[in-house]
Amino acid sequence: MKKISESTIRRLSKYYRSLEQLISRGVETVSSDTLAEMDGITSAQVRKDLSFFGTFGVRGLGYDTRDLKRQIGEILGLNRTWRVGIVGAGNIGKALVSYAEFKKQGFQVCLVMDSDPEKIGTRIGELTVQDTRDLEKLIKKEKIEIAIIAVPADAAQRVANELIDAGIKAILNFAPISIKAPHGIRVKNENTAIEIEALSYFLTNS
Amino acid sequence: MKKISESTIRRLSKYYRSLEQLISRGVETVSSDTLAEMDGITSAQVRKDLSFFGTFGVRGLGYDTRDLKRQIGEILGLNRTWRVGIVGAGNIGKALVSYAEFKKQGFQVCLVMDSDPEKIGTRIGELTVQDTRDLEKLIKKEKIEIAIIAVPADAAQRVANELIDAGIKAILNFAPISIKAPHGIRVKNENTAIEIEALSYFLTNS
Repeated sequence: MKKISESTIRRLSKYYRSLEQLISRGVETVSSDTLAEMDGITSAQVRKDLSFFGTFGVRGLGYDTRDLKRQIGEILGLNRTWRVGIVGAGNIGKALVSYAEFKKQGFQVCLVMDSDPEKIGTRIGELTVQDTRDLEKLIKKEKIEIAIIAVPADAAQRVANELIDAGIKAILNFAPISIKAPHGIRVKNENTAIEIEALSYFLTNS
Repeated sequence: MKKISESTIRRLSKYYRSLEQLISRGVETVSSDTLAEMDGITSAQVRKDLSFFGTFGVRGLGYDTRDLKRQIGEILGLNRTWRVGIVGAGNIGKALVSYAEFKKQGFQVCLVMDSDPEKIGTRIGELTVQDTRDLEKLIKKEKIEIAIIAVPADAAQRVANELIDAGIKAILNFAPISIKAPHGIRVKNENTAIEIEALSYFLTNS
Protein backbone atom coordinates (compact mmCIF):
# COMPACT_ATOMS: atom_id res chain seq x y z
CA MET A 1 0.00 0.00 0.00
CA LYS A 2 1.10 3.55 -0.67
CA LYS A 3 2.42 5.57 2.26
CA ILE A 4 -0.32 7.64 3.87
CA SER A 5 0.56 10.98 5.47
CA GLU A 6 0.04 11.69 9.14
CA SER A 7 -2.69 14.22 8.40
CA THR A 8 -4.54 11.76 6.16
CA ILE A 9 -4.45 9.14 8.94
CA ARG A 10 -5.88 11.72 11.31
CA ARG A 11 -8.73 12.45 8.88
CA LEU A 12 -9.39 8.73 8.43
CA SER A 13 -9.79 8.48 12.23
CA LYS A 14 -12.36 11.28 12.03
CA TYR A 15 -14.28 9.66 9.16
CA TYR A 16 -14.26 6.42 11.15
CA ARG A 17 -15.93 8.17 14.10
CA SER A 18 -18.46 9.93 11.90
CA LEU A 19 -19.32 6.61 10.26
CA GLU A 20 -19.82 5.05 13.70
CA GLN A 21 -22.25 7.83 14.55
CA LEU A 22 -24.11 7.45 11.26
CA ILE A 23 -24.36 3.66 11.63
CA SER A 24 -25.67 4.02 15.18
CA ARG A 25 -28.41 6.25 13.75
CA GLY A 26 -29.25 3.61 11.14
CA VAL A 27 -27.82 5.54 8.17
CA GLU A 28 -26.82 3.13 5.38
CA THR A 29 -25.16 5.39 2.82
CA VAL A 30 -23.34 8.69 3.11
CA SER A 31 -22.11 11.26 0.61
CA SER A 32 -18.67 12.84 0.69
CA ASP A 33 -20.48 16.15 1.31
CA THR A 34 -22.02 14.83 4.54
CA LEU A 35 -18.75 13.32 5.77
CA ALA A 36 -17.04 16.60 4.93
CA GLU A 37 -19.61 18.61 6.84
CA MET A 38 -19.42 16.33 9.90
CA ASP A 39 -15.67 16.69 10.12
CA GLY A 40 -15.19 20.27 8.93
CA ILE A 41 -13.23 19.18 5.84
CA THR A 42 -13.87 19.97 2.15
CA SER A 43 -15.72 17.25 0.24
CA ALA A 44 -12.97 17.27 -2.41
CA GLN A 45 -10.52 16.32 0.36
CA VAL A 46 -12.80 13.51 1.55
CA ARG A 47 -13.06 12.09 -1.98
CA LYS A 48 -9.31 12.41 -2.47
CA ASP A 49 -8.56 10.65 0.84
CA LEU A 50 -10.94 7.80 0.11
CA SER A 51 -9.94 7.32 -3.52
CA PHE A 52 -6.33 7.21 -2.37
CA PHE A 53 -6.91 3.77 -0.93
CA GLY A 54 -9.20 2.62 -3.72
CA THR A 55 -12.63 3.36 -2.27
CA PHE A 56 -15.10 5.13 -4.52
CA GLY A 57 -18.62 6.15 -3.70
CA VAL A 58 -21.50 5.23 -5.98
CA ARG A 59 -22.68 8.28 -7.95
CA GLY A 60 -25.90 9.58 -6.46
CA LEU A 61 -25.72 7.16 -3.52
CA GLY A 62 -22.38 7.82 -1.87
CA TYR A 63 -20.57 5.33 0.30
CA ASP A 64 -21.98 2.33 2.12
CA THR A 65 -21.41 3.33 5.77
CA ARG A 66 -20.64 -0.15 7.16
CA ASP A 67 -18.42 -1.07 4.28
CA LEU A 68 -16.47 2.17 4.45
CA LYS A 69 -16.08 1.91 8.22
CA ARG A 70 -14.73 -1.62 7.89
CA GLN A 71 -12.25 -0.57 5.20
CA ILE A 72 -10.98 2.43 7.16
CA GLY A 73 -10.82 0.28 10.29
CA GLU A 74 -8.62 -2.19 8.43
CA ILE A 75 -6.22 0.53 7.33
CA LEU A 76 -6.02 1.97 10.85
CA GLY A 77 -5.64 -1.46 12.43
CA LEU A 78 -8.89 -1.14 14.34
CA ASN A 79 -10.45 -4.48 13.44
CA ARG A 80 -8.53 -6.19 16.26
CA THR A 81 -7.46 -5.42 19.83
CA TRP A 82 -4.11 -3.93 20.85
CA ARG A 83 -2.44 -4.59 24.18
CA VAL A 84 -1.42 -1.30 25.78
CA GLY A 85 0.90 -0.69 28.75
CA ILE A 86 1.14 2.59 30.67
CA VAL A 87 4.23 3.81 32.52
CA GLY A 88 3.26 6.33 35.20
CA ALA A 89 0.25 6.05 37.51
CA GLY A 90 -0.20 9.76 38.17
CA ASN A 91 -3.28 11.74 37.13
CA ILE A 92 -2.79 11.24 33.40
CA GLY A 93 -1.89 7.55 33.69
CA LYS A 94 -4.90 6.94 35.90
CA ALA A 95 -7.27 8.75 33.53
CA LEU A 96 -5.99 6.69 30.59
CA VAL A 97 -6.42 3.32 32.34
CA SER A 98 -10.15 3.93 32.36
CA TYR A 99 -10.40 5.95 29.13
CA ALA A 100 -13.60 4.63 27.54
CA GLU A 101 -12.63 5.71 24.02
CA PHE A 102 -9.53 3.45 24.11
CA LYS A 103 -11.55 0.42 25.08
CA LYS A 104 -14.19 1.18 22.48
CA GLN A 105 -11.62 1.24 19.65
CA GLY A 106 -9.87 -1.93 20.79
CA PHE A 107 -6.98 -0.44 22.77
CA GLN A 108 -6.92 -2.61 25.87
CA VAL A 109 -4.85 -1.27 28.77
CA CYS A 110 -3.39 -4.43 30.36
CA LEU A 111 -0.51 -3.03 32.40
CA VAL A 112 0.21 0.07 34.46
CA MET A 113 3.55 0.67 36.17
CA ASP A 114 5.07 3.27 38.48
CA SER A 115 8.31 3.69 40.41
CA ASP A 116 6.67 5.26 43.49
CA PRO A 117 6.43 2.71 46.36
CA GLU A 118 3.26 4.50 47.52
CA LYS A 119 1.59 3.72 44.18
CA ILE A 120 2.93 0.21 43.52
CA GLY A 121 0.36 -2.36 44.58
CA THR A 122 -2.59 0.06 44.54
CA ARG A 123 -5.55 -0.61 42.25
CA ILE A 124 -6.67 1.48 39.27
CA GLY A 125 -9.87 0.06 37.86
CA GLU A 126 -9.15 -3.63 37.29
CA LEU A 127 -5.37 -3.26 37.28
CA THR A 128 -2.80 -3.33 40.08
CA VAL A 129 0.06 -0.85 39.69
CA GLN A 130 3.30 -2.76 39.01
CA ASP A 131 6.89 -1.78 39.73
CA THR A 132 8.76 -0.15 36.79
CA ARG A 133 11.85 -2.04 37.94
CA ASP A 134 10.25 -5.08 36.29
CA LEU A 135 9.41 -3.14 33.11
CA GLU A 136 11.10 -5.42 30.57
CA LYS A 137 9.75 -8.60 32.14
CA LEU A 138 6.21 -7.20 32.45
CA ILE A 139 6.10 -5.78 28.90
CA LYS A 140 7.04 -9.19 27.54
CA LYS A 141 4.80 -11.18 29.89
CA GLU A 142 1.77 -9.02 29.09
CA LYS A 143 2.64 -8.98 25.36
CA ILE A 144 2.34 -5.19 25.28
CA GLU A 145 2.37 -3.75 21.75
CA ILE A 146 1.81 -0.04 22.39
CA ALA A 147 3.28 1.79 25.39
CA ILE A 148 2.14 5.06 26.88
CA ILE A 149 4.58 7.27 28.78
CA ALA A 150 2.93 9.35 31.50
CA VAL A 151 5.93 10.15 33.71
CA PRO A 152 7.59 13.53 34.45
CA ALA A 153 9.73 15.10 31.71
CA ASP A 154 13.06 14.24 33.32
CA ALA A 155 12.28 10.50 33.41
CA ALA A 156 10.61 10.21 29.99
CA GLN A 157 13.62 9.53 27.74
CA ARG A 158 15.00 6.89 30.12
CA VAL A 159 11.61 5.14 30.25
CA ALA A 160 11.40 5.31 26.44
CA ASN A 161 14.82 3.68 26.11
CA GLU A 162 13.77 0.89 28.47
CA LEU A 163 10.55 0.32 26.54
CA ILE A 164 12.44 0.16 23.25
CA ASP A 165 14.95 -2.29 24.77
CA ALA A 166 11.97 -4.39 25.85
CA GLY A 167 10.85 -4.57 22.20
CA ILE A 168 8.21 -1.83 22.05
CA LYS A 169 7.86 -0.25 18.59
CA ALA A 170 5.07 2.28 19.19
CA ILE A 171 4.98 4.86 21.98
CA LEU A 172 2.47 7.54 22.89
CA ASN A 173 4.29 10.13 25.02
CA PHE A 174 2.47 12.47 27.40
CA ALA A 175 5.61 13.85 29.05
CA PRO A 176 6.24 17.49 28.03
CA ILE A 177 9.48 16.69 26.19
CA SER A 178 10.29 15.42 22.69
CA ILE A 179 11.43 11.80 22.89
CA LYS A 180 14.19 10.51 20.64
CA ALA A 181 13.87 7.03 19.20
CA PRO A 182 15.84 5.04 16.63
CA HIS A 183 14.52 4.42 13.12
CA GLY A 184 11.70 1.89 13.02
CA ILE A 185 10.20 3.04 16.34
CA ARG A 186 7.18 5.34 16.15
CA VAL A 187 6.71 7.95 18.86
CA LYS A 188 3.67 10.24 19.03
CA ASN A 189 4.07 13.15 21.41
CA GLU A 190 0.82 14.19 23.02
CA ASN A 191 1.12 17.45 24.89
CA THR A 192 -2.09 19.02 26.01
CA ALA A 193 -0.29 22.17 27.10
CA ILE A 194 0.84 22.69 23.50
CA GLU A 195 -2.77 22.42 22.32
CA ILE A 196 -3.94 25.02 24.81
CA GLU A 197 -1.11 27.33 23.70
CA ALA A 198 -2.65 27.45 20.24
CA LEU A 199 -5.69 28.91 22.02
CA SER A 200 -3.73 31.50 24.00
CA TYR A 201 -2.02 32.43 20.71
CA PHE A 202 -5.43 32.86 19.10
CA LEU A 203 -6.80 34.98 21.97
CA THR A 204 -3.64 37.08 22.06
CA ASN A 205 -3.57 37.76 18.33
CA SER A 206 -7.24 38.10 17.43
CA MET B 1 1.63 40.64 12.60
CA LYS B 2 1.40 38.13 9.77
CA LYS B 3 -0.82 35.11 10.25
CA ILE B 4 1.08 32.13 11.62
CA SER B 5 0.04 28.61 10.63
CA GLU B 6 -1.14 26.03 13.15
CA SER B 7 1.95 23.88 12.57
CA THR B 8 4.26 26.86 13.10
CA ILE B 9 2.53 27.67 16.40
CA ARG B 10 3.03 24.06 17.45
CA ARG B 11 6.74 24.27 16.66
CA LEU B 12 7.01 27.57 18.56
CA SER B 13 5.56 25.76 21.61
CA LYS B 14 8.28 23.14 21.22
CA TYR B 15 11.08 25.71 20.90
CA TYR B 16 9.69 27.43 23.99
CA ARG B 17 10.03 24.19 25.99
CA SER B 18 13.50 23.48 24.66
CA LEU B 19 14.56 27.01 25.59
CA GLU B 20 13.19 26.49 29.11
CA GLN B 21 15.28 23.36 29.41
CA LEU B 22 18.40 25.12 28.11
CA ILE B 23 17.92 28.09 30.44
CA SER B 24 17.46 25.76 33.44
CA ARG B 25 20.83 24.23 32.52
CA GLY B 26 22.42 27.69 32.39
CA VAL B 27 22.81 27.78 28.59
CA GLU B 28 22.90 31.41 27.35
CA THR B 29 22.96 31.04 23.57
CA VAL B 30 21.69 28.35 21.23
CA SER B 31 22.15 27.63 17.53
CA SER B 32 19.31 26.74 15.17
CA ASP B 33 21.06 23.36 14.78
CA THR B 34 20.72 22.61 18.49
CA LEU B 35 17.07 23.72 18.62
CA ALA B 36 16.42 21.62 15.53
CA GLU B 37 18.07 18.57 17.06
CA MET B 38 16.16 18.97 20.36
CA ASP B 39 12.83 19.07 18.57
CA GLY B 40 13.45 16.72 15.66
CA ILE B 41 13.02 19.52 13.09
CA THR B 42 15.42 20.65 10.33
CA SER B 43 17.56 23.67 11.21
CA ALA B 44 16.39 25.40 8.01
CA GLN B 45 12.84 25.13 9.35
CA VAL B 46 13.88 26.58 12.72
CA ARG B 47 15.57 29.55 11.04
CA LYS B 48 12.57 30.06 8.78
CA ASP B 49 10.13 29.96 11.71
CA LEU B 50 12.15 32.39 13.78
CA SER B 51 12.93 34.80 10.93
CA PHE B 52 9.22 34.82 10.14
CA PHE B 53 8.58 36.89 13.21
CA GLY B 54 11.70 38.97 12.87
CA THR B 55 14.14 37.14 15.14
CA PHE B 56 17.57 36.47 13.74
CA GLY B 57 20.42 34.67 15.44
CA VAL B 58 23.88 36.20 15.62
CA ARG B 59 26.24 34.46 13.18
CA GLY B 60 28.53 32.11 15.08
CA LEU B 61 26.66 32.68 18.36
CA GLY B 62 23.06 31.78 17.63
CA TYR B 63 20.11 33.03 19.64
CA ASP B 64 20.07 34.44 23.16
CA THR B 65 18.03 31.79 25.01
CA ARG B 66 16.25 34.13 27.45
CA ASP B 67 15.53 36.71 24.81
CA LEU B 68 14.17 34.14 22.36
CA LYS B 69 12.05 32.48 25.05
CA ARG B 70 10.54 35.84 26.00
CA GLN B 71 9.76 36.67 22.35
CA ILE B 72 8.15 33.31 21.64
CA GLY B 73 6.25 33.55 24.92
CA GLU B 74 4.86 36.90 23.83
CA ILE B 75 3.63 35.50 20.52
CA LEU B 76 2.02 32.50 22.22
CA GLY B 77 0.47 34.65 24.95
CA LEU B 78 2.45 32.90 27.68
CA ASN B 79 3.78 35.96 29.48
CA ARG B 80 0.56 36.25 31.49
CA THR B 81 -1.94 33.92 33.16
CA TRP B 82 -5.14 32.61 31.57
CA ARG B 83 -8.26 31.67 33.52
CA VAL B 84 -9.43 28.22 32.49
CA GLY B 85 -12.77 26.49 33.21
CA ILE B 86 -13.41 22.77 32.79
CA VAL B 87 -16.80 21.22 32.05
CA GLY B 88 -16.84 17.57 33.10
CA ALA B 89 -15.33 16.19 36.30
CA GLY B 90 -14.72 12.64 35.08
CA ASN B 91 -11.28 11.08 34.75
CA ILE B 92 -10.03 13.50 32.11
CA GLY B 93 -11.47 16.59 33.79
CA LYS B 94 -9.96 15.54 37.11
CA ALA B 95 -6.54 14.89 35.60
CA LEU B 96 -6.58 18.34 33.94
CA VAL B 97 -7.49 20.22 37.14
CA SER B 98 -4.16 19.17 38.60
CA TYR B 99 -2.14 19.08 35.36
CA ALA B 100 1.20 20.58 36.37
CA GLU B 101 2.15 21.62 32.83
CA PHE B 102 -0.90 23.92 32.62
CA LYS B 103 -0.01 25.68 35.84
CA LYS B 104 3.62 26.02 34.80
CA GLN B 105 2.69 27.78 31.54
CA GLY B 106 0.19 30.12 33.18
CA PHE B 107 -3.06 28.25 32.48
CA GLN B 108 -4.86 28.50 35.78
CA VAL B 109 -7.83 26.17 36.22
CA CYS B 110 -10.29 28.22 38.31
CA LEU B 111 -13.55 26.39 37.70
CA VAL B 112 -14.72 22.81 37.24
CA MET B 113 -18.35 21.89 36.59
CA ASP B 114 -20.38 18.72 36.19
CA SER B 115 -24.06 17.81 35.83
CA ASP B 116 -23.85 14.67 37.98
CA PRO B 117 -25.35 15.31 41.47
CA GLU B 118 -22.87 12.76 42.87
CA LYS B 119 -19.97 14.90 41.67
CA ILE B 120 -21.33 18.38 42.38
CA GLY B 121 -19.93 19.65 45.68
CA THR B 122 -17.00 17.20 45.77
CA ARG B 123 -13.43 18.54 45.86
CA ILE B 124 -10.78 18.15 43.16
CA GLY B 125 -7.54 19.63 44.41
CA GLU B 126 -8.40 23.13 45.56
CA LEU B 127 -11.65 23.36 43.59
CA THR B 128 -15.21 22.34 44.42
CA VAL B 129 -17.18 20.85 41.53
CA GLN B 130 -19.95 23.28 40.52
CA ASP B 131 -23.27 22.59 38.83
CA THR B 132 -23.29 23.00 35.02
CA ARG B 133 -26.78 24.44 35.36
CA ASP B 134 -25.04 27.63 36.51
CA LEU B 135 -22.56 27.52 33.62
CA GLU B 136 -23.15 30.98 32.20
CA LYS B 137 -23.16 32.68 35.60
CA LEU B 138 -20.02 30.82 36.75
CA ILE B 139 -18.08 31.45 33.52
CA LYS B 140 -18.75 35.16 33.88
CA LYS B 141 -18.17 35.34 37.64
CA GLU B 142 -14.84 33.49 37.38
CA LYS B 143 -13.86 35.51 34.28
CA ILE B 144 -13.03 32.29 32.38
CA GLU B 145 -11.20 32.91 29.09
CA ILE B 146 -10.49 29.36 27.90
CA ALA B 147 -12.93 26.48 28.41
CA ILE B 148 -12.16 22.78 28.33
CA ILE B 149 -14.86 20.28 27.40
CA ALA B 150 -14.40 16.88 29.05
CA VAL B 151 -17.94 15.49 28.81
CA PRO B 152 -19.27 12.49 26.82
CA ALA B 153 -19.63 12.88 23.04
CA ASP B 154 -23.40 13.24 23.08
CA ALA B 155 -23.29 16.25 25.45
CA ALA B 156 -20.29 18.02 23.92
CA GLN B 157 -21.95 20.19 21.25
CA ARG B 158 -24.64 21.39 23.67
CA VAL B 159 -22.00 22.32 26.26
CA ALA B 160 -20.00 24.10 23.55
CA ASN B 161 -23.06 26.14 22.55
CA GLU B 162 -23.64 27.13 26.17
CA LEU B 163 -20.01 28.15 26.59
CA ILE B 164 -20.13 30.25 23.43
CA ASP B 165 -23.38 31.87 24.62
CA ALA B 166 -21.57 32.68 27.87
CA GLY B 167 -18.91 34.56 25.87
CA ILE B 168 -16.16 31.95 25.59
CA LYS B 169 -14.01 32.35 22.45
CA ALA B 170 -11.50 29.52 22.88
CA ILE B 171 -12.37 25.88 23.57
CA LEU B 172 -10.23 22.79 24.02
CA ASN B 173 -12.45 19.78 23.36
CA PHE B 174 -11.64 16.31 24.70
CA ALA B 175 -14.96 14.73 23.70
CA PRO B 176 -14.53 12.28 20.80
CA ILE B 177 -16.60 14.36 18.38
CA SER B 178 -15.86 17.36 16.14
CA ILE B 179 -17.44 20.45 17.63
CA LYS B 180 -18.99 23.09 15.37
CA ALA B 181 -18.53 26.72 16.30
CA PRO B 182 -19.31 30.00 14.56
CA HIS B 183 -16.63 32.17 12.98
CA GLY B 184 -14.48 33.95 15.55
CA ILE B 185 -14.55 31.07 18.03
CA ARG B 186 -11.50 28.81 18.12
CA VAL B 187 -11.98 25.13 18.94
CA LYS B 188 -9.10 22.67 19.29
CA ASN B 189 -10.15 19.05 19.30
CA GLU B 190 -7.92 16.87 21.45
CA ASN B 191 -8.59 13.21 20.95
CA THR B 192 -6.09 10.83 22.45
CA ALA B 193 -7.73 7.86 20.77
CA ILE B 194 -6.95 9.45 17.39
CA GLU B 195 -3.30 9.77 18.38
CA ILE B 196 -3.07 6.13 19.36
CA GLU B 197 -4.71 5.14 16.05
CA ALA B 198 -1.72 6.62 14.23
CA LEU B 199 0.31 4.04 16.16
CA SER B 200 -1.96 1.10 15.33
CA TYR B 201 -1.79 2.24 11.69
CA PHE B 202 2.00 2.24 11.92
CA LEU B 203 2.15 -1.21 13.52
CA THR B 204 -0.35 -2.60 11.01
CA ASN B 205 1.43 -1.24 7.96
CA SER B 206 5.13 -1.56 8.86
